[in-house]
Amino acid sequence: MSGLVAELESLAPTMAPDAVLTDPDRMAGYRWDRANDPTAGTPVAVVRVSSTEDVQAVVRLAARHRVPIVTRGAGTSLSGGSTAADGCVVISTERMRRIEVDPLTRTCRTEPGLFNAEVKAAAAAHGLWYPPDPSSFEICSIGGNIATNAGGLCCVKYGVTTDYVLGMTVVLADGTVVELGGPRIKDVAGLSLTKLFVGSEGTLGIVTEVVLRLLPAQRPPSTLVATFGSLTDATGAVCEMTRTMRPSMLEFMDQASINAVEDMTRMGLDRSAAALLVIQSDEPAEFALAELEAISEICSRYRASEVFHTDDPQEGEAFVAARRAAIPALERRGSLLLEDVGVPIPQLSDLVDGIAAISANRGVDIAVVAHAGDGNTHPLIVFDPSDTEQVERAQAAYGEVMELAIGLGGTITGEHGVGRLKKAWLPDQLGEEAMELNRRIKQALDPDGILNPGVIF
Amino acid sequence: MSGLVAELESLAPTMAPDAVLTDPDRMAGYRWDRANDPTAGTPVAVVRVSSTEDVQAVVRLAARHRVPIVTRGAGTSLSGGSTAADGCVVISTERMRRIEVDPLTRTCRTEPGLFNAEVKAAAAAHGLWYPPDPSSFEICSIGGNIATNAGGLCCVKYGVTTDYVLGMTVVLADGTVVELGGPRIKDVAGLSLTKLFVGSEGTLGIVTEVVLRLLPAQRPPSTLVATFGSLTDATGAVCEMTRTMRPSMLEFMDQASINAVEDMTRMGLDRSAAALLVIQSDEPAEFALAELEAISEICSRYRASEVFHTDDPQEGEAFVAARRAAIPALERRGSLLLEDVGVPIPQLSDLVDGIAAISANRGVDIAVVAHAGDGNTHPLIVFDPSDTEQVERAQAAYGEVMELAIGLGGTITGEHGVGRLKKAWLPDQLGEEAMELNRRIKQALDPDGILNPGVIF
Ligand SMILES: Cc1cc2nc3c(=O)[nH]c(=O)nc-3n(C[C@H](O)[C@H](O)[C@H](O)COP(=O)(O)OP(=O)(O)OC[C@H]3O[C@@H](n4cnc5c(N)ncnc54)[C@H](O)[C@@H]3O)c2cc1C
Ligand SMILES: Cc1cc2nc3c(=O)[nH]c(=O)nc-3n(C[C@H](O)[C@H](O)[C@H](O)COP(=O)(O)OP(=O)(O)OC[C@H]3O[C@@H](n4cnc5c(N)ncnc54)[C@H](O)[C@@H]3O)c2cc1C
Repeated sequence: MSGLVAELESLAPTMAPDAVLTDPDRMAGYRWDRANDPTAGTPVAVVRVSSTEDVQAVVRLAARHRVPIVTRGAGTSLSGGSTAADGCVVISTERMRRIEVDPLTRTCRTEPGLFNAEVKAAAAAHGLWYPPDPSSFEICSIGGNIATNAGGLCCVKYGVTTDYVLGMTVVLADGTVVELGGPRIKDVAGLSLTKLFVGSEGTLGIVTEVVLRLLPAQRPPSTLVATFGSLTDATGAVCEMTRTMRPSMLEFMDQASINAVEDMTRMGLDRSAAALLVIQSDEPAEFALAELEAISEICSRYRASEVFHTDDPQEGEAFVAARRAAIPALERRGSLLLEDVGVPIPQLSDLVDGIAAISANRGVDIAVVAHAGDGNTHPLIVFDPSDTEQVERAQAAYGEVMELAIGLGGTITGEHGVGRLKKAWLPDQLGEEAMELNRRIKQALDPDGILNPGVIF
Repeated sequence: MSGLVAELESLAPTMAPDAVLTDPDRMAGYRWDRANDPTAGTPVAVVRVSSTEDVQAVVRLAARHRVPIVTRGAGTSLSGGSTAADGCVVISTERMRRIEVDPLTRTCRTEPGLFNAEVKAAAAAHGLWYPPDPSSFEICSIGGNIATNAGGLCCVKYGVTTDYVLGMTVVLADGTVVELGGPRIKDVAGLSLTKLFVGSEGTLGIVTEVVLRLLPAQRPPSTLVATFGSLTDATGAVCEMTRTMRPSMLEFMDQASINAVEDMTRMGLDRSAAALLVIQSDEPAEFALAELEAISEICSRYRASEVFHTDDPQEGEAFVAARRAAIPALERRGSLLLEDVGVPIPQLSDLVDGIAAISANRGVDIAVVAHAGDGNTHPLIVFDPSDTEQVERAQAAYGEVMELAIGLGGTITGEHGVGRLKKAWLPDQLGEEAMELNRRIKQALDPDGILNPGVIF
């Protein structure tokens, strides 16, 4: 191990200044991600790579010493995906920030370290749009998005990260550099390997460059906000909308999250509402109006207490920002265990009811926000970390919510990834045969298991 | 081998009547696909399976005897993907025709043997739409579409097959049955294995059921047809359009294909045009008009000789049908070697020019049709199969077109697959590292190489 550190330090002169960190104080910030796992390990070194060659050099060394590698983008993982393992080398992509937009092919080639918001901005400078928009878009890296196949708010109409990845450069567990795909909209030459690496959570390779597909700029959306006196009415309305329409956003907040956000923002949300939906349409003007009117009618039919719509993008954005603020707002109330369970949309109501029952039964607060149009919910379990008995109840609830989702034909993770925190439930969802298939692929690409050990597998 | 046949015949009573064919005459129709490879092998048996269990039983037997399996959907492959290998067992999915549409989740669950057009029709019966539309949609199976990640005409706006596959049941090389994904729009639990099987051309497993995502019915499109006096003008116009707009179709025909179609249909196409574009917009009415007017202006700027547009879907469909008729129309002129090369859109013009040069140089006719908006072209090399010297020149041109595409940063196959016919060029496109990665995955999933040997690998 100390041999490895010495070798890493001897690599340092081939890299940008101050690339290799071994000082525990400076490494501390690289131990945790946003899952705040108290069992996070301590790395032996953090390497702030600047290029594919840097990554290759570090991987080769680590492979030779069979030392685990944890790849880290911006560390906003909610499932412990970028939590350090004891004795690992952390490869941080924060310095890999080059981007080139090609308006002719409507693609961009980018390194992994840029924030999602920076990729969006670079595209926007050419009148183009990179759709995927996790709520964390201002603080998460595009590499992390690719490694988790990140979702977000516009997915309901525009799909998830994988739908925009055309190619990548990836460093494998033995240091081999592979180029996959490229700026070609359609390309079926060989197996779909680009798609395999998307969502692989750093367990199959390290992504050092990606080619992303861009769209022409989105039309400014119109926004509808509706409040409901009952959860069932709100989820019933969602189900009705998704059957026949394609809004460009369809988000849900329950009473607990409405109140947490209202505490933080004082923007005047209706604290008495059982649920609030934020819905957007980006159809051309009159058609957006027609779409939102149809949606408004559905809301009324499902007994909405208030329905409001606006074609002022700024005014609409305030409500979207409120929805995005739910996680930070709830973090003020205590520690969070963040769920990410999804179900087929007709099961949304059973899921939300079941979560309320778990909350009551375990005596822990669970607030729910959701990318409702995709059936992807984020139950947020709030607990006091100093109360060990409450921590246990929160953890029990965490597992029960996943079991509930699996029982409803759903998934334990719609977009955050399995990471370290959810892997115990993965076999229940996938079944033994699919687990074995996952392991076979992992074994084929990383036989010594050095890439992100403890994540997924 | 004869042991295998006897065992297959003893399985027959567990299957639907007449499932196992061993009579050479009855097997003849299962030897070739639409690539008409003269070197097609002879199977020892054809099994017309009816269920996942049937497939599993056949695969287990074949695996025990190490006999190759060729999976066959409807046999419309243009790259020799479903051509029989000598001594193989052909598994034909033609009898696996169940489908269930769930309008609540906007998904359907279907067996692989239905034609693409039948899946579309089942969805349409519920006011829903399955977008992927290969030109062969009335004669190709949905299983074949998934195995090749089929494209088509609407891809330019609505993406390719993989974008609609949410889950599948697959039988692996050892007979294990695995369920992947399901009717959940977002699901990142475990590696992206569903996506890995899409486009794997029957080399990793046999797909026995799929869950597909459906969209609300498409709006009736408006259609624009433009003719050009020069190829460069036509490709220049395409490039200009795709930079800023998202038409729902953007197809190209060159003079040779216009004339072949006109010979067959007598619909009055302009035989003197160097190129013809068929473009659709499915935006809401006035916006379609505005989009097509902007496109019309671009066509004029690129010196279009004639521009015509219509919002009558029937009238528009006649031009789309003309474009789709290009392959059958050219098949009347001789045998075809069908290309499927793609390039980044700015390289379209160089590709089309280069093809003309190869055609002149080799003295063989090459007609070009293209899904131009994706940069995906189908150069169709026409030759007289009885003239061995011409056959050789055609084959030389076939390779040269792929080398040209690779040189332009393109792909040897945008949608038809590598199959048997293109595998010699695959390493040139992918490079040694990516080839090795493909082989590693193949090795992990099919260590004895019994699934579709000779395809891709
Ligand atoms: C307030 C808040 C809101 C959020 N909202 C959403 C949301 O709406 N949708 C959503 O999908 N997520 C959301 N997230 C979760 C998180 O932001 C995403 O998972 C994001 O994609 C992680 O990016 P990151 O750069 O922070 O990755 P990290 O946390 O650094 O890493 C995440 C995983 O990716 C791997 N990884 C990172 N970079 C690479 C690379 N270059 N190569 C290989 N592997 C790599 C890591 O090893 C780890 O397994 C939210 C998080 C927060 C804190
Ligand atoms: C006139 C014409 C026009 C065409 N236009 C297009 C077009 O626009 N776009 C396009 O993409 N293609 C097009 N094609 C090519 C062809 O139709 C597609 O490749 C189609 O997807 C093949 O479907 P199939 O059922 O005929 O498959 P087959 O030819 O039977 O098989 C194709 C491949 O898939 C594998 N396979 C089939 N079923 C399964 C299964 N259940 N599990 C695992 N593997 C399986 C086979 O082993 C083989 O490798 C066209 C073909 C013709 C003749």
